[in-house]
Amino acid sequence: MKGPGRRPGPSRTREAILDAAREGFATRGYERTTIRGVAGGAGVDPALVHHFFGTKEELFVAAVEPPVRPGEILPKLIAADPERFGEQVIRVFLSVWDAQPNRDVILALLRSAVSNDRAAAIFRGFVAAELVPAIGAVVGPANAAYRATLLATQLVGLAVIRYIIRAEPVASADPETLARSIGPTIQRYATGDAV
Amino acid sequence: MKGPGRRPGPSRTREAILDAAREGFATRGYERTTIRGVAGGAGVDPALVHHFFGTKEELFVAAVEPPVRPGEILPKLIAADPERFGEQVIRVFLSVWDAQPNRDVILALLRSAVSNDRAAAIFRGFVAAELVPAIGAVVGPANAAYRATLLATQLVGLAVIRYIIRAEPVASADPETLARSIGPTIQRYATGDAV
Repeated sequence: MKGPGRRPGPSRTREAILDAAREGFATRGYERTTIRGVAGGAGVDPALVHHFFGTKEELFVAAVEPPVRPGEILPKLIAADPERFGEQVIRVFLSVWDAQPNRDVILALLRSAVSNDRAAAIFRGFVAAELVPAIGAVVGPANAAYRATLLATQLVGLAVIRYIIRAEPVASADPETLARSIGPTIQRYATGDAV
Repeated sequence: MKGPGRRPGPSRTREAILDAAREGFATRGYERTTIRGVAGGAGVDPALVHHFFGTKEELFVAAVEPPVRPGEILPKLIAADPERFGEQVIRVFLSVWDAQPNRDVILALLRSAVSNDRAAAIFRGFVAAELVPAIGAVVGPANAAYRATLLATQLVGLAVIRYIIRAEPVASADPETLARSIGPTIQRYATGDAV
């Protein structure tokens, strides 16, 4: 995407900016990532980043949009096999985030949310707007917010230990092992007697 | 502790430096915390910080030393009531970290470990040197590393959601509610069929 003599179209330029933004937020966190730095990484003018995405906060929201939406996937998983919902959530979670370049999305989200209050607020907004209704669709609205946030404690902790702190043996455990170990936790938080 | 006309003794000076270090690591993370900044926060000369603690990494290790050692507390909890071990772990965890100024210790540890590879390595070292033997003392050495790291996924995730991202209702849930919800997860990871 970079260098002179190459004129990418708008959608490739947009993707190049998002890639550079994810790389910045994932490695340097929210505060130390700048529009100027992202523009440099994407080989474009900073004005173009503003044109496509607006403020740094808006760029962050676009950069950390998850490739899979909980509101779409969770109701499908519960319908397909209600007893194995928790295991399936872990399988899908790992299949999405174990893969590059998705990994940069969750690193960008977590590194930023842990270091910056604005990014933390965006994360809270994601839980409220996406995860709570998704769990509500699975088990009904009663206690959906508490169930969804319990789920978030386990999934965020798994991501932090596996992808960021990389503590073994969880960091390189195979997905099936983790689905058996952690799936029942998700099952209980979403549908069981945890509440 | 600060200001002229006040000459604290060595142990109070040491505590003032540790407090300033925790505040720095907790709010700014590992990389942006400097010996010079910590010295300024404590009202002492940077050379004194080096004298007491050595390098920034050594200062970090001293600053995030937990007020309760897993190797001491976990065997006591399992001996006192093996069936309620998991709930008790959550009660102790929250009683330690809900309290100020302890809160700064876990914020310093997590914000630093998530943003910096050296701090992440120190966290991994803590899990290997403290948590794994503690779980080994509870359930024997077989799979102690995997059980301990599973435990870490849930406890780290709880801390991130409750103390850093502050997603409700987990952020202000009372400890008994969380002990009932999350205790069985800890019980199963430490002693149950999760492995």
